[in-house]
Amino acid sequence: MSDHDTALAGWTEQSRPAALFRRFAFGSYAQTRAFLDRVAAVQEELGLAPQNISFGTTYVNITIAAANGTLGQAERTLARRISDVAQTGSPA
Amino acid sequence: MSDHDTALAGWTEQSRPAALFRRFAFGSYAQTRAFLDRVAAVQEELGLAPQNISFGTTYVNITIAAANGTLGQAERTLARRISDVAQTGSPA
Repeated sequence: MSDHDTALAGWTEQSRPAALFRRFAFGSYAQTRAFLDRVAAVQEELGLAPQNISFGTTYVNITIAAANGTLGQAERTLARRISDVAQTGSPA
Repeated sequence: MSDHDTALAGWTEQSRPAALFRRFAFGSYAQTRAFLDRVAAVQEELGLAPQNISFGTTYVNITIAAANGTLGQAERTLARRISDVAQTGSPA
């Protein structure tokens, strides 16, 4: 994989500790809730969970931490899959 | 209701802004996930949602904010019901 993979649309990459962060906004609690369910399905499928998910009725903030100090393909795949289910509304 | 109702076991009450906070810890992601689902059922039943729910695989932090500046019976009922479903494991 090339360095171009580092750019994940919508996600902010931070270092020390290495993590990916993104805020998702929704028009209703029902949409927020449906998104949370899809994120749960994604993380169960991948066997990798965000370090933290913080949500209110119309937003979800997700932090994905690096398992071993540096962000790898596994963390980026998790981020990409979460973005996918935020947009499509379909189960992963 | 008397002032004795102010004491909600396990919850920390803060002022400015007025809010109730509690951290719940679980032994597994499955337990965490089941608790989150029960909290969702409680808030849908009461028509009142926590301001923020922040969770990882084995913990859930819940903040209940005061709707109009002071904590009332509605917020305390929400807190008590959430505590109930954390302990019993049964649906609200």
